[in-house]
Amino acid sequence: MSTAGAQQGRGERGRGTAAAGTQAAGTRLDPWLDAYAERAHGMRSSEIRALFSVASRPEVVSLAGGMPNIDGLPMDALAEMSAKLLRDRGAEALQYGSGQGETEIREQVVEVMRYDHVHAHADDVVITTGSQQALDLVTEIFVDPGDVIVAEAPSYVGALGVFRAYQADVVHVPMDEHGLVPAELEATLGRLAAEGRRVKFLYTVPNFHNPAGVTLSEDRRPQVVDICRRHHVLILEDNPYGLLGFDADPMPALKSYDPDGVIYLGSFSKTFAPGYRVGWALAPHAIREKLVLASEAAILSPSRLSQLSVASYLQTFDWYGQIKEFRQEYRERRDAMLGALHEHLPELSWTVPAGGFYTWVTLPEGLDAKAMLPRAVTNLVAYVSGTAFYADDQGADHMRLSFCYPTPERIREGVRRLSVVVRAEAELVELFGTSHDARPHSGIDIPGPDQV
Amino acid sequence: MSTAGAQQGRGERGRGTAAAGTQAAGTRLDPWLDAYAERAHGMRSSEIRALFSVASRPEVVSLAGGMPNIDGLPMDALAEMSAKLLRDRGAEALQYGSGQGETEIREQVVEVMRYDHVHAHADDVVITTGSQQALDLVTEIFVDPGDVIVAEAPSYVGALGVFRAYQADVVHVPMDEHGLVPAELEATLGRLAAEGRRVKFLYTVPNFHNPAGVTLSEDRRPQVVDICRRHHVLILEDNPYGLLGFDADPMPALKSYDPDGVIYLGSFSKTFAPGYRVGWALAPHAIREKLVLASEAAILSPSRLSQLSVASYLQTFDWYGQIKEFRQEYRERRDAMLGALHEHLPELSWTVPAGGFYTWVTLPEGLDAKAMLPRAVTNLVAYVSGTAFYADDQGADHMRLSFCYPTPERIREGVRRLSVVVRAEAELVELFGTSHDARPHSGIDIPGPDQV
Repeated sequence: MSTAGAQQGRGERGRGTAAAGTQAAGTRLDPWLDAYAERAHGMRSSEIRALFSVASRPEVVSLAGGMPNIDGLPMDALAEMSAKLLRDRGAEALQYGSGQGETEIREQVVEVMRYDHVHAHADDVVITTGSQQALDLVTEIFVDPGDVIVAEAPSYVGALGVFRAYQADVVHVPMDEHGLVPAELEATLGRLAAEGRRVKFLYTVPNFHNPAGVTLSEDRRPQVVDICRRHHVLILEDNPYGLLGFDADPMPALKSYDPDGVIYLGSFSKTFAPGYRVGWALAPHAIREKLVLASEAAILSPSRLSQLSVASYLQTFDWYGQIKEFRQEYRERRDAMLGALHEHLPELSWTVPAGGFYTWVTLPEGLDAKAMLPRAVTNLVAYVSGTAFYADDQGADHMRLSFCYPTPERIREGVRRLSVVVRAEAELVELFGTSHDARPHSGIDIPGPDQV
Repeated sequence: MSTAGAQQGRGERGRGTAAAGTQAAGTRLDPWLDAYAERAHGMRSSEIRALFSVASRPEVVSLAGGMPNIDGLPMDALAEMSAKLLRDRGAEALQYGSGQGETEIREQVVEVMRYDHVHAHADDVVITTGSQQALDLVTEIFVDPGDVIVAEAPSYVGALGVFRAYQADVVHVPMDEHGLVPAELEATLGRLAAEGRRVKFLYTVPNFHNPAGVTLSEDRRPQVVDICRRHHVLILEDNPYGLLGFDADPMPALKSYDPDGVIYLGSFSKTFAPGYRVGWALAPHAIREKLVLASEAAILSPSRLSQLSVASYLQTFDWYGQIKEFRQEYRERRDAMLGALHEHLPELSWTVPAGGFYTWVTLPEGLDAKAMLPRAVTNLVAYVSGTAFYADDQGADHMRLSFCYPTPERIREGVRRLSVVVRAEAELVELFGTSHDARPHSGIDIPGPDQV
């Protein structure tokens, strides 16, 4: 087989052999198509990526992105902080560092997690290139092809991308307005055990869920932990938005109920700035050791300059005061979005997020969020189709609207434009029974990094 | 099986169940031992890592590390540059960016590669978190468990770590003082084809090889490319040191001979500073698309702040002049090392590097570099045992000495201390026939990130 593949491959490359045959040589063909790993066959650009490059034009109101609004950061003071760091400790900051991350930032991460009622030791923290890398590393060390990962329905698109890269089989568990439904989790884990399926972990975003906008209620937290413990299922708790609650202090993290049963992921991307790419995993000790080895194989060490910059920010700025400002800002934007939905699209339903960046909108019967998206972009408004947030074919009746990045005024205008599109679409459905270019859904649509 | 595993796992965790049994609960046991992926079983801390934490004490002369000497960088000017970037473009630099990397830095990377006779387009460049991440991504998209990767003997320890994480089977090909031996490569690829083994790529460091210190001669370059092309084997050309030649301008990269058959990896870690973690891959177009998708799954996007910082450095500083200063500095250190070897250890042999960071030393018959290392550290000098650079049991008769980081004076003192250790060891061998705690070698010894 490998010889035949090599022969074919040589022909396809069409250079270096006299026997290139009738196949046209050209850059459009991939001469290495026969050489990719099994896992690479699932990697493909989704059709909506092209659309998003259109959606990033300034005239389009994008309710699609997950970019934090960092305009409020004190840039001049950060510039001075950065200069001081290089002047005072440049040769250290610009050198290779520890694979686990610098002690200085790991100790501060421990302090940050106290707000989530997590009492940890800096030894068990691994600094990563954004918490996305932590997601990748955890999946790498736990998931063999065909293993099951249980995740909320819907779930974070960037996590689904990682899980697909490791050829995991994602099984969704329903949520309601109080987050993951414990009885559904229990039933799903029971069913999977009865089927002899190997569940490697529960992936969950308990706070201000992306994309669902809901939060796991406090009484459900010990229940979820207990169910997973009884089924010997590890929990991967992803908490990028936890400090961005609009009304109350953070509830205890799942990690606080069972330190040995939970890997907790955190990030400075939403509470400070994503450009540093500093996130972390807090893991049980033995897992932490493997995470460090996996991270060293992947990147040697995370950027020391980034880590010391974030450490310096946490030391010298009123970072929690800044988070309070972010909360206020995002609350205003949420209110603008929900108010505009009430005004322009009262026939739709949506979740009411108590923090974070997103609301999850349910479309009227017959409307298809994925099919409607090109028309929305034509009408200068963008969102993410609900289909992006499932590993299976669900989600066409939903869309995720982000209120994190545009101003309140732009949000209102975006929802107004969206209402025009939804109305037109509903009329089509009424006339023809379906929106006329609805297509079957297959696979996961992965938006680009600035859309997740 | 999964149910039995779950039962055992619960018992081991020893909490949350009444039936913890006689097994002592404690943090030393790993309750998730039964849950790891197949690939994670090969991840383990090597015995020499502990030694290296001793070796990093200031009284030890470390000839082990691969850290560039960045003391010569103009820190005050870099501080000002960094401050200006945040003042002028802070909201941009601190935001999420493109998964492929910023256009600005990709265009400059194209300019940098012209020194290697590579003519590329910025569209085909993918920016990564150091070129280590590029190594990881390429392996991810090409290597299924059991696939063969052909690599030089010896080979870069950090690459071997990645290849092991993806469960590749590494087959080594000998080098001589002119680098990889084409006839040996031809014979190895022929043999593997005859055996029906699937070779996914040749991994090679053509310039100032880590750890061998040799450079692939110019006449061998088209030969290596041609052999791989005939066997339909992709080339992964890793070139972190290419601009650090002491005597001559860079030779043409393998990439320049066959743009469609080579993935080229570059890095700013050795030519500027590793703390930014900015490296890149230049890949044939179809491969580049998959690299971007894999990178987005792994980290969403590389640090925009880091990328714009490096871009700003390349735009506003005499970066090539700085490289010339680095060359001068490293040349002096190489001369100090080779001079000291001549003076103190004339009975040994070593390679004469024309650039880069390392020389590869052959020990006298009967000496074992791995067994000798603890005694070397006791004598306040450290190196990396040759065993770290092979996927099999070779290498005990070699050690890698780095001249990049210590001053010439410290290098001379380090080699002097090493000569004392080698003499004592040789005496032991003469008396007892072997150094007395020589142990069988197994697996790869992976030093930490500051040792590679």
